[in-house]
Amino acid sequence: MPGYGDLVILISPRGKRYLRRIQEGQGIHFQEGILSATTVREAIFGGSARTAHGVPFMVQRPELVDLLMGVKRQTQIIYPKDIAYICMKLGVGPGRVTLESGTGSGSLTLALSYVSGPTGHVHSCEAREEFHKLARRNLEWAGLGENVTLYLRDIATGFPVREADAVFLDVRTPWEYLDQALAAVKPGGTFGFLVPTVDQVGRVLFGLETRPFGDIEVVEILLRKWKPVADRLRPEDRMIAHTGFLIFARQQEKPADWDSFITLGTRERKQHAARRQRLGGNGEEEI
Amino acid sequence: MPGYGDLVILISPRGKRYLRRIQEGQGIHFQEGILSATTVREAIFGGSARTAHGVPFMVQRPELVDLLMGVKRQTQIIYPKDIAYICMKLGVGPGRVTLESGTGSGSLTLALSYVSGPTGHVHSCEAREEFHKLARRNLEWAGLGENVTLYLRDIATGFPVREADAVFLDVRTPWEYLDQALAAVKPGGTFGFLVPTVDQVGRVLFGLETRPFGDIEVVEILLRKWKPVADRLRPEDRMIAHTGFLIFARQQEKPADWDSFITLGTRERKQHAARRQRLGGNGEEEI
Amino acid sequence: MPGYGDLVILISPRGKRYLRRIQEGQGIHFQEGILSATTVREAIFGGSARTAHGVPFMVQRPELVDLLMGVKRQTQIIYPKDIAYICMKLGVGPGRVTLESGTGSGSLTLALSYVSGPTGHVHSCEAREEFHKLARRNLEWAGLGENVTLYLRDIATGFPVREADAVFLDVRTPWEYLDQALAAVKPGGTFGFLVPTVDQVGRVLFGLETRPFGDIEVVEILLRKWKPVADRLRPEDRMIAHTGFLIFARQQEKPADWDSFITLGTRERKQHAARRQRLGGNGEEEI
Amino acid sequence: MPGYGDLVILISPRGKRYLRRIQEGQGIHFQEGILSATTVREAIFGGSARTAHGVPFMVQRPELVDLLMGVKRQTQIIYPKDIAYICMKLGVGPGRVTLESGTGSGSLTLALSYVSGPTGHVHSCEAREEFHKLARRNLEWAGLGENVTLYLRDIATGFPVREADAVFLDVRTPWEYLDQALAAVKPGGTFGFLVPTVDQVGRVLFGLETRPFGDIEVVEILLRKWKPVADRLRPEDRMIAHTGFLIFARQQEKPADWDSFITLGTRERKQHAARRQRLGGNGEEEI
Repeated sequence: MPGYGDLVILISPRGKRYLRRIQEGQGIHFQEGILSATTVREAIFGGSARTAHGVPFMVQRPELVDLLMGVKRQTQIIYPKDIAYICMKLGVGPGRVTLESGTGSGSLTLALSYVSGPTGHVHSCEAREEFHKLARRNLEWAGLGENVTLYLRDIATGFPVREADAVFLDVRTPWEYLDQALAAVKPGGTFGFLVPTVDQVGRVLFGLETRPFGDIEVVEILLRKWKPVADRLRPEDRMIAHTGFLIFARQQEKPADWDSFITLGTRERKQHAARRQRLGGNGEEEI
Repeated sequence: MPGYGDLVILISPRGKRYLRRIQEGQGIHFQEGILSATTVREAIFGGSARTAHGVPFMVQRPELVDLLMGVKRQTQIIYPKDIAYICMKLGVGPGRVTLESGTGSGSLTLALSYVSGPTGHVHSCEAREEFHKLARRNLEWAGLGENVTLYLRDIATGFPVREADAVFLDVRTPWEYLDQALAAVKPGGTFGFLVPTVDQVGRVLFGLETRPFGDIEVVEILLRKWKPVADRLRPEDRMIAHTGFLIFARQQEKPADWDSFITLGTRERKQHAARRQRLGGNGEEEI
Repeated sequence: MPGYGDLVILISPRGKRYLRRIQEGQGIHFQEGILSATTVREAIFGGSARTAHGVPFMVQRPELVDLLMGVKRQTQIIYPKDIAYICMKLGVGPGRVTLESGTGSGSLTLALSYVSGPTGHVHSCEAREEFHKLARRNLEWAGLGENVTLYLRDIATGFPVREADAVFLDVRTPWEYLDQALAAVKPGGTFGFLVPTVDQVGRVLFGLETRPFGDIEVVEILLRKWKPVADRLRPEDRMIAHTGFLIFARQQEKPADWDSFITLGTRERKQHAARRQRLGGNGEEEI
Repeated sequence: MPGYGDLVILISPRGKRYLRRIQEGQGIHFQEGILSATTVREAIFGGSARTAHGVPFMVQRPELVDLLMGVKRQTQIIYPKDIAYICMKLGVGPGRVTLESGTGSGSLTLALSYVSGPTGHVHSCEAREEFHKLARRNLEWAGLGENVTLYLRDIATGFPVREADAVFLDVRTPWEYLDQALAAVKPGGTFGFLVPTVDQVGRVLFGLETRPFGDIEVVEILLRKWKPVADRLRPEDRMIAHTGFLIFARQQEKPADWDSFITLGTRERKQHAARRQRLGGNGEEEI
């Protein structure tokens, strides 16, 4: 079972949620009084512990989602909704080797580590030393990372491994690293990209279309929360409307005569021809 | 590495996608000609194989998403977008024990098996024999399920295990099994529910509110696909707008004097009092 | 052309947007200095005016959307996205007679007035005197309302007019006024309702299903804003995710033998029968 | 009251909805038998009429939404949800002069005509004769259009009127007509655009950013339908996920020294400078 050091979730009567580490002999200070390490340790998950002032705090086991929301960040957050779908589409899991760049603050790395378990492995590259170090600290903080290798490395020079099952790129210009990514995966491997703007989506797509990739998909995952009140049920007033566009693909060679076997309808063929013309020659500017 | 028997994805030049099993000495018949088992075996993933007529088919490794969309179903589908988020929120993964009911066609079971890996375990209960058997066949078909125990069992009489980390209920009246679910998890365990209508959401919420549950959340996951064309980028015209409401909770005891420590603003206190009055006495009818 | 008194939109260099009335001889005070009434009057819409300190303010004509966002409110806002669709579905417009209750702060009334023009009319009922007065002040403030009659009246006793083309109810318990609404419209008239919770939607639907209504629709209108930057195009990070559910219907008598002519498939017929059984006798509790 | 010739909505017991013209002495033929013109005329809206075979049909007054969905189309549909919001944002209504191009099949023209009423006016330009004629036929069919002037005209040479209140462009390359549009509106006039792809949005935005425009907004309107069944309430399984991006702006001159008065935070200023650099010189290619 993944252990998370001595992390614990504490919830105050005012509804505040704290993710804290219990350290022997050290109390945890709140406005409501001090919670002693011993008291918290004796509490069971789903139970409660009282401060020196007698105020109860609910005690919960930190789950992956809590850890993800709790890591120290100096980079843009990747939300659990996106992480969950990335893992699903890339097939990340036990027995799989997953490659990631950039490591950033390490929150996706943390999730990849959790999901891959002792029989999988995660290789994560980061060019900036401060993030490389931050991610290491975050993995240690979470009690995860035994199946993770962190690299301080610019992937422009290539990835440190080959034969990975999957690659995920969360960098500003992912289209510049497609050849490196292709060189790092097994035949038929899966690829994922996260970018915030449609301009970036277009550039990644152009890069994928002109290389041996197939099964290309672009999606957005939207999470709509509801107010969880039985007799006043309705969606929350506000929601996070955009975190990023997710792009997925698989390595796929196309036989040289493939197009000659495509039997399209008249409309599709015209679109196809028009498209080729637009991309031809000065395709780059058209994106 | 999870093995999927001899399943393979084959993609025709017309863009059709087939998930097929390769069986020694047996060709796979298509409109475009017969693909021999030997030819497909010799192809590498991400490569291609030709039918006796010379028509190329792309060959891909079946990933979890392919298996999920490929199982034989006699029940409502659970979509990858929802499965991914369910696993994330429940903390399903290596080392975890997850409990599910009903098994249905076994597509969620299949995903839970994949995600849990050799160090986790899945217990899945189903009351109807035909589904129980179908799920077993689907797990075998997918080459998964070594970490799964299937039970032909009505959960009204309780779950077959205790001390699970998480429970997921995909049944028509989940609010009838909350006590059984509570009895089956570890202290602080996680709970998930999938229901299609808001009436059902209301009933589950009422059940959760009147039992030792906390961290209650209701969400919808929406997946918006985009047309993956670099220079004509735009969302797909249509999308799946509703698959179900996801409800999550954790086991959480509330100290008897908890409410006395809640210091709400005036507005919240009024709402709280009004609410209690509405629910009081004849709460059931109010849902 | 609708006139809006002497209202004007003023936009500061810091991007703040002000909706202000120009009053002869009175300057408008800003942090950036005083804008004299004369200066603003001399500016043209789409142009600018300078404060005594020389700071320029852009000057714009207030449009309906500006007025809607600018009214004084003591009630929940109705958003332009919803108002626009309500008018569309109800057929509000020149030559039409529209009935509304409650008036509330009068923002929908203001829009109905604008859209109906000199050849249409709006009748709006409100039971609470403070809102009735507030709405009157808001209409006057906006320079609209010549085609509006405001009533201080509890619609439980019926609407003050008959033969309206359309009725819109924005009250807490609209299901209690369906008979009154039916009595107030022309044969085949249109009906609209706005309610925030699904429980209310269910109650309105039950009321509509048991009365002469047809063409029943329930919708949500979602507005997703994008960051309007040419080379960094992407959706806004956050959005308003819920304002209310819109319900629409038309008055429609069903011939007594109508059901005998319905030829449903087996599945539909079973659903229909099951449904009738659920609703039968104690239907109210089932909602 | 807008008259719609002799159009009527007829709904069969099988739930089919027909928009038909009643012509004296001519029966309307259905699978369920013939409905005589006299029978339909004698029915009241919200009532019913019977075919010669005795099958009842519900009779309804065609509303604007029915007309919009009923026009003959050779072009892409503009949906009521988008039309409603376009009219709201542009301030189209009684007393307003609205300019449109291209006319297309005339469905937006029809809505503009309805909304503008006898005191407003709509000028609509179309370069292709077949659409120009089709739109005329559609307006006549709908009994609308008295306040509409249709022009067979390529707007590259300019619009036929000046001093319009609002302009709406639904053409493939709207960024090519921004100067013509500017020349056609009153100071401070409103502008709207509908384009399907993000590439087009980017080009329009670039055109707006480099001309006297302000209040630029890009939005999508999403309509989510719910199954209107009181005790099984839930969203429809599928929805229309994309119809187009709506772009809005107003004519707005910026004083020459405007930027010197903008006091941005450090972050905004850096972004602004970076942006200017990206657009500078070869901005066109960057979009």
